[in-house]
Amino acid sequence: MSDAQPPRASEPRTRIRRQRRLLGAATSQALRFFGAAHRHRRRRVPPGAPPDAMLIPQDAPRPRLQWISFDSQGCSRREVSDPVELHAVLGDGRVDWINVVGFGDEALLRRLGEVLGIHALAMADVVNAPQRPKVDAYGDRHLIILRMARLEEQGIDLQQVSLVLGPGWVVSFEEHEGDVFGPVRERIASDASLLRRSGADFLAYALVDAVVDGFFPVLDRISDSLEELEEFAIGHPEPETLARIHSLRRLLLLLERVQRQQRDAVMLLTRNEHNAFGAEVRPYLLDLQDHAIHVLDSLESFREISVGLMDIYLSSVGIRANDVMKTLTIMASVFIPLSFLAGVYGMNFEYMPELGWRWGYPVLWVVMLGVAFGLLAWFRRRGWLGSDAPEPGADAERRRDP
Amino acid sequence: MSDAQPPRASEPRTRIRRQRRLLGAATSQALRFFGAAHRHRRRRVPPGAPPDAMLIPQDAPRPRLQWISFDSQGCSRREVSDPVELHAVLGDGRVDWINVVGFGDEALLRRLGEVLGIHALAMADVVNAPQRPKVDAYGDRHLIILRMARLEEQGIDLQQVSLVLGPGWVVSFEEHEGDVFGPVRERIASDASLLRRSGADFLAYALVDAVVDGFFPVLDRISDSLEELEEFAIGHPEPETLARIHSLRRLLLLLERVQRQQRDAVMLLTRNEHNAFGAEVRPYLLDLQDHAIHVLDSLESFREISVGLMDIYLSSVGIRANDVMKTLTIMASVFIPLSFLAGVYGMNFEYMPELGWRWGYPVLWVVMLGVAFGLLAWFRRRGWLGSDAPEPGADAERRRDP
Amino acid sequence: MSDAQPPRASEPRTRIRRQRRLLGAATSQALRFFGAAHRHRRRRVPPGAPPDAMLIPQDAPRPRLQWISFDSQGCSRREVSDPVELHAVLGDGRVDWINVVGFGDEALLRRLGEVLGIHALAMADVVNAPQRPKVDAYGDRHLIILRMARLEEQGIDLQQVSLVLGPGWVVSFEEHEGDVFGPVRERIASDASLLRRSGADFLAYALVDAVVDGFFPVLDRISDSLEELEEFAIGHPEPETLARIHSLRRLLLLLERVQRQQRDAVMLLTRNEHNAFGAEVRPYLLDLQDHAIHVLDSLESFREISVGLMDIYLSSVGIRANDVMKTLTIMASVFIPLSFLAGVYGMNFEYMPELGWRWGYPVLWVVMLGVAFGLLAWFRRRGWLGSDAPEPGADAERRRDP
Amino acid sequence: MSDAQPPRASEPRTRIRRQRRLLGAATSQALRFFGAAHRHRRRRVPPGAPPDAMLIPQDAPRPRLQWISFDSQGCSRREVSDPVELHAVLGDGRVDWINVVGFGDEALLRRLGEVLGIHALAMADVVNAPQRPKVDAYGDRHLIILRMARLEEQGIDLQQVSLVLGPGWVVSFEEHEGDVFGPVRERIASDASLLRRSGADFLAYALVDAVVDGFFPVLDRISDSLEELEEFAIGHPEPETLARIHSLRRLLLLLERVQRQQRDAVMLLTRNEHNAFGAEVRPYLLDLQDHAIHVLDSLESFREISVGLMDIYLSSVGIRANDVMKTLTIMASVFIPLSFLAGVYGMNFEYMPELGWRWGYPVLWVVMLGVAFGLLAWFRRRGWLGSDAPEPGADAERRRDP
Amino acid sequence: MSDAQPPRASEPRTRIRRQRRLLGAATSQALRFFGAAHRHRRRRVPPGAPPDAMLIPQDAPRPRLQWISFDSQGCSRREVSDPVELHAVLGDGRVDWINVVGFGDEALLRRLGEVLGIHALAMADVVNAPQRPKVDAYGDRHLIILRMARLEEQGIDLQQVSLVLGPGWVVSFEEHEGDVFGPVRERIASDASLLRRSGADFLAYALVDAVVDGFFPVLDRISDSLEELEEFAIGHPEPETLARIHSLRRLLLLLERVQRQQRDAVMLLTRNEHNAFGAEVRPYLLDLQDHAIHVLDSLESFREISVGLMDIYLSSVGIRANDVMKTLTIMASVFIPLSFLAGVYGMNFEYMPELGWRWGYPVLWVVMLGVAFGLLAWFRRRGWLGSDAPEPGADAERRRDP
Repeated sequence: MSDAQPPRASEPRTRIRRQRRLLGAATSQALRFFGAAHRHRRRRVPPGAPPDAMLIPQDAPRPRLQWISFDSQGCSRREVSDPVELHAVLGDGRVDWINVVGFGDEALLRRLGEVLGIHALAMADVVNAPQRPKVDAYGDRHLIILRMARLEEQGIDLQQVSLVLGPGWVVSFEEHEGDVFGPVRERIASDASLLRRSGADFLAYALVDAVVDGFFPVLDRISDSLEELEEFAIGHPEPETLARIHSLRRLLLLLERVQRQQRDAVMLLTRNEHNAFGAEVRPYLLDLQDHAIHVLDSLESFREISVGLMDIYLSSVGIRANDVMKTLTIMASVFIPLSFLAGVYGMNFEYMPELGWRWGYPVLWVVMLGVAFGLLAWFRRRGWLGSDAPEPGADAERRRDP
Repeated sequence: MSDAQPPRASEPRTRIRRQRRLLGAATSQALRFFGAAHRHRRRRVPPGAPPDAMLIPQDAPRPRLQWISFDSQGCSRREVSDPVELHAVLGDGRVDWINVVGFGDEALLRRLGEVLGIHALAMADVVNAPQRPKVDAYGDRHLIILRMARLEEQGIDLQQVSLVLGPGWVVSFEEHEGDVFGPVRERIASDASLLRRSGADFLAYALVDAVVDGFFPVLDRISDSLEELEEFAIGHPEPETLARIHSLRRLLLLLERVQRQQRDAVMLLTRNEHNAFGAEVRPYLLDLQDHAIHVLDSLESFREISVGLMDIYLSSVGIRANDVMKTLTIMASVFIPLSFLAGVYGMNFEYMPELGWRWGYPVLWVVMLGVAFGLLAWFRRRGWLGSDAPEPGADAERRRDP
Repeated sequence: MSDAQPPRASEPRTRIRRQRRLLGAATSQALRFFGAAHRHRRRRVPPGAPPDAMLIPQDAPRPRLQWISFDSQGCSRREVSDPVELHAVLGDGRVDWINVVGFGDEALLRRLGEVLGIHALAMADVVNAPQRPKVDAYGDRHLIILRMARLEEQGIDLQQVSLVLGPGWVVSFEEHEGDVFGPVRERIASDASLLRRSGADFLAYALVDAVVDGFFPVLDRISDSLEELEEFAIGHPEPETLARIHSLRRLLLLLERVQRQQRDAVMLLTRNEHNAFGAEVRPYLLDLQDHAIHVLDSLESFREISVGLMDIYLSSVGIRANDVMKTLTIMASVFIPLSFLAGVYGMNFEYMPELGWRWGYPVLWVVMLGVAFGLLAWFRRRGWLGSDAPEPGADAERRRDP
Repeated sequence: MSDAQPPRASEPRTRIRRQRRLLGAATSQALRFFGAAHRHRRRRVPPGAPPDAMLIPQDAPRPRLQWISFDSQGCSRREVSDPVELHAVLGDGRVDWINVVGFGDEALLRRLGEVLGIHALAMADVVNAPQRPKVDAYGDRHLIILRMARLEEQGIDLQQVSLVLGPGWVVSFEEHEGDVFGPVRERIASDASLLRRSGADFLAYALVDAVVDGFFPVLDRISDSLEELEEFAIGHPEPETLARIHSLRRLLLLLERVQRQQRDAVMLLTRNEHNAFGAEVRPYLLDLQDHAIHVLDSLESFREISVGLMDIYLSSVGIRANDVMKTLTIMASVFIPLSFLAGVYGMNFEYMPELGWRWGYPVLWVVMLGVAFGLLAWFRRRGWLGSDAPEPGADAERRRDP
Repeated sequence: MSDAQPPRASEPRTRIRRQRRLLGAATSQALRFFGAAHRHRRRRVPPGAPPDAMLIPQDAPRPRLQWISFDSQGCSRREVSDPVELHAVLGDGRVDWINVVGFGDEALLRRLGEVLGIHALAMADVVNAPQRPKVDAYGDRHLIILRMARLEEQGIDLQQVSLVLGPGWVVSFEEHEGDVFGPVRERIASDASLLRRSGADFLAYALVDAVVDGFFPVLDRISDSLEELEEFAIGHPEPETLARIHSLRRLLLLLERVQRQQRDAVMLLTRNEHNAFGAEVRPYLLDLQDHAIHVLDSLESFREISVGLMDIYLSSVGIRANDVMKTLTIMASVFIPLSFLAGVYGMNFEYMPELGWRWGYPVLWVVMLGVAFGLLAWFRRRGWLGSDAPEPGADAERRRDP
């Protein structure tokens, strides 16, 4: 991660500029995603349609099926073009993982569902993304719907990933390329891995674990954004900052809702009511549940902090206004009495003895300077003068030292 | 949906104007509806009246009964004028759906209730709309009261729809024309439909599903309104905008309350305590429950966003005030010292050497211009001058480039 | 209800005046009531006193006992002066309803309790009003404590009403005259009524139902007040308006708390753990529970709306302040430069060529008018000029038309 | 209670002064108490110490043991100096109540615990006050820890009172003099009292009841304070008022937390899982539970009202600021144009025809007065002039009358 | 604790300065910790890695193992260099406590886990700090993860401490030096201690108790900070104060979240589902649970108070602004009319009779002084003049006295 090194204080401008770029990207992307979620809703099955209808967008990529089959002895990997080949999956005594990417062929997906005995409603939930993260049991097939968060160049990608766990096999569905399963594939390839010595239930656990842990880099990014926004809220209380706080809050609201449902799904897995998981997987599920709770806790903290950000922003705006008003008050209060004095001696009365005095003019200047400095001293004593909001501690320091 | 295409940024005024028209319509309509709900409460049965009293407004349309009867073989459809004809419904081995529109004939409704064995309290709940969305069991008759949301030309229509599920038949009641059951009717008409091969419980499920899914277009409309209001809150923080935010919040409060009860009703259906639904319908009910939860989740997010809107609005008002004050401060601070100087040399002292100097007047002009530009430079350095709230990033950019 | 007709827009002043009178009455009355509740607390039994102590205020009216006895055959009604006469109530095979109004005779009330076998603690709860709405079982005597809301001339009367349901009889206690049981008495008098063919449990249900439904007119009144206060908050953001919002919120807090307990009491009735109610009454109890939930829902919505009112009020105050500041800014910004120019040519330098020019004075006027109109044009372009907060839509309209 | 009579409107100043004195006393005392609670925490057992360690402050008063023994026949009362005498308490067939005041002798307290068979942890909880209000069972000894509120001259005293209920006896512990058990002692002394005819469980109930009811006078005092603070927040929005609102809120937070735990403790008593109480005491426990809920309800209402107070205060501050700004705007707007006019005719152009006109000076006065009154009229029409925030109703009244 | 003595009012500046230093340290340290937690997250196991992976930072100190072994007869203490020596721990009939400090040797830790039969997942949770506080059972080994708070010179140290309770032994793990177990070690060394006569379960209880009680000094420090910040918020409403309130709130959010999980862990211990604890330890566990609840309660109160602080701060800022505006208003309102008068008599009309009057000039001065004092009197009557926000009580006092 390129911004892991601590920001150097000597280059605040550069850092802020870099941050702005990243944050701008992140939030606009997040909003873009939000918009995308929106478009998904737009292409939602119309009210009253059959419940197993699939609505596939025109430009959906054609499905690619990758079949990884392994047992403790070895591991094979191949591409599958027709789901019928997958009949071999059933009852072959090995663990099989079929990864499906892209939904651009309804017939193929339906055939896949028939070959592996997946309920039509489950297939509809897989395809009509985004669904609520959840766990459903259809006999001994278990549908697990999750949301996978990945940091990308331009922001956060938050696509739905669906797992179906059957006896001895797991099918995973992704709408487009880009997942967090790379390390799992590596562990399968390694002979020493616990994965290779375990069943399909452990594979399913490992995949869910990768999805849940995939949120941690996103949390780190958001935490960075919050800290920078805090500096902005104090130092640059401008409408743009407000808009950023607001879009970050919307992003947090979205993530928290998704993650709350995800945690509930994980807790349902852990309770294991349908005996989908063997006893030896249970400690791992508890560990997984811990991670899910951790992610949700962090998101909740972030939201509370973002509420505080709003307060800071509003208060900074108020202090700025105060500053403007102080300037006006000082300028006006100092010069208005002086102008009055000048006005007095600009009067045209015939009998104004001061006008004829030899030292009248210089004496008046002395009086006017006296008034001006008197007022300034009074303002200074009230603390309205000097650098904006003097550090009172520094003040105390100064008094103590001499 | 005519506004599905993305708004073009090149025409903001037109878009805002269109949006304002739609939104104005939507919210005023929503408020009109709210008022209507009000009037309903006004024509509520007076306290202490018999619990099965029906209170039917004078101008209620006369009931129209449409009877659709089908089995896997075929499907017939006819209008019924006297409920007595419906005796044939009971135990005919087919699935019957009677759709009643309009409550303008109490005697006819009571007769209908007697023919089909619907409890008098259930009939009262059907007629005395709006009731809370709920599910009640009266023996093997199940009363399901829902609220149906439909986007109309002038806004959102939110009428009550009541279903009574009996053995082998469903009766649905609507107060006035306009429902979301069109696609269900089409599926009944289609020989290949799952509906035709299933029982009355599946029909009831399909109707409830259509009602719940009918909220999705309303959600899309509200989401659009929220986004436009966000722009308004930043760009046009005027009382009118505040009134719109407030009425949208009232609408969201209403919808959320209704939808929370609706979700509870759907969850009660899913639990199926009274065995109203067969086992093969259960996966569909779980799917339905998912949709209801999704709708409620969205409404809750919308409400949280609308709270943020208020913050943005208030903050924009504050920034505007700040802007006004800055203008005043700059004008006054620049000209008050100059006026003072002019006042000084307008004085009538006899001995004011400067007045007699040859270059006194032009020198004073130079001094005054110097003071003015000095103050302006100071204001500029404090960031009070220039375009409202200069983009600090742009500023940094500019400095880096030359 | 005299204000059932929709308010005419042509007479806003009159309507507001009428509303103010009613509202003022309602809230001050509500507060008076609140104060009364207060006084009740003041005459509370002192800490440490025996738990069955009755504390009866000096000026309490003497009890009046009205005895209505009925079965499906007929109905009799008489006044009772000594509770001993009520021995006839027990086991007479008819349904008996004794309505007690006024608590001004402790001995009589204690005798009544003994005759009917009511526990001393129950009698203390009946008399030491106001208690929390609740349901208590003392063997086969059931104490139901409710709060009865009635719209009166000067406001809302919210007195405690207590029911004791025994086998075959109901006793109701009210502290002073004025209840919502009129329609129930009429239904008892009517031969066709279901009440006459049912037992004491149905009578108890009917009384509770009347109390719960009695809140609906109060809700309508509050809803009206909220709408008017909304107009006030936008149009008249004055301290008086704030005080009204605050007292309405206090009233809503009070009503919501009372109603939450009332709903809990009703739900306890519905659960019917002590078999106080027969099976045929159960659907009616569910209906009753629905009404109680509806009342509470409305009150909760009202409270959320009242919170929004506060926001509107505060924002209106801010917009007013903005308006004042804009006026000052425009006046000062226009005239301060002009005064400066006048000051310049009021100076007494000997060599000021402009002073001698023939057209100096008129040219200066032209310059000054130019400056003034330039500034006004600039203010207009920023939208600070013109009617307060111009409707931007109207503005757009205007531009489009010519 | 001396302030039970309604405050007279004719003496607001006196009333406010009196109130301020009382309130100041109450809140500062409350804070003093809070500080005291603090000091208690300070003398807390250090982390890692044995769990039954007692930490007794240096200046703790020596224990005084009062032993009241009674049955239906009679009642005796004596002081006990050595706990060993209390062996007679066990199994003497009478009800015994030992009241211990002061913890200044650890050895004596430990001996008391041993004689009566009280667990060392229970004794530690009794002494190391303040503990959370709670109910613990140690075999057939039940420890009940409560907080006792008493209005005193200078404020609210909130000391811990602990009860241990054993078979046939009750021990109560207080840290210092001053309790709410006086009336209970009187009831024990009275031959006719139910207490004398009941067991130790009823005595324990009576003591807990006295503690719970002791909160009611405190509630009345707080309610008075809230009402007065409301007037202050509208009429005197000064920092001092803010500080008072804040300290009242802290007091309410403290009381609510304590009372929530107290209510939970009372509900645990009512559930009576350990059969500490006989069946005939159960109705009384339910009554007690009611009182505890009532106290908590009131405290919650008070807190919600105190939140509203803050809103009122902030809004009053805003209205004040508005008032100040209006004054400035009116003064400046009226005189700035006039000064400009005067400045114009103070110019020294050679050709200014008006200067030579005969009536120029008086005409200018007329013009200036016209401008001034025109502006004042315009301000008046906007409602910025006149008494602060004119009652709009009165305004309407005035227009209607003539 | 050096600041236990009550602050002297005579030295507010010194006290505030001292407080600022401490608080600054505390919060910056707290934030530093927060940053540290962050870095921990950074070195988190990458998504998809094996669940038992340990990620140990480069600079982690090498493990030090201290082995304390005791029974009622005696107690021995030694350093262990190789975990294999710990085989003696198993089944030696004594209670053994192994304290591990520092995680800088993965192989050694894994060996330790194997020798004592600790699950690999448990070891991973121990090392990959910070984990959520929790209790997990792996057969008869119980993993207890807690967070230990210690006040240090520069702030709060909040490191994770993990306990594994096996049959007859306890292992505790700390990441770096510095714990709260000193008094427990002393109690083990003392022959009279209950610890020496009890089993490993009581030792585990004592350690958890020390961790929970270790929060109390931290609470006291925070309570002090809150009180000082309150004074600051009223007296020094500057951005720095806001930043402090904000960082204290973040610290409270963090502590509350940790403590909520800690309390849940302790309650799980108390429920003792896996019979890890003997019956005689149960009263002590309940006592422990009480302490954990107490800590959480205090933190919740603190958070609510900190919310109030924000209100006070914002209100103080508003009052300051008001003060500034009042000054401007008074200065401008007094001098603007006077300047106008001066301007009038500076006009050059030929016919201005006043200019020729003998007493014109002095009379004008009298008029101007009259206007000035009239305005000042009016401002005084409105309460805008005098010391900032005069104490109204003092005012009343003053009026009463003479």
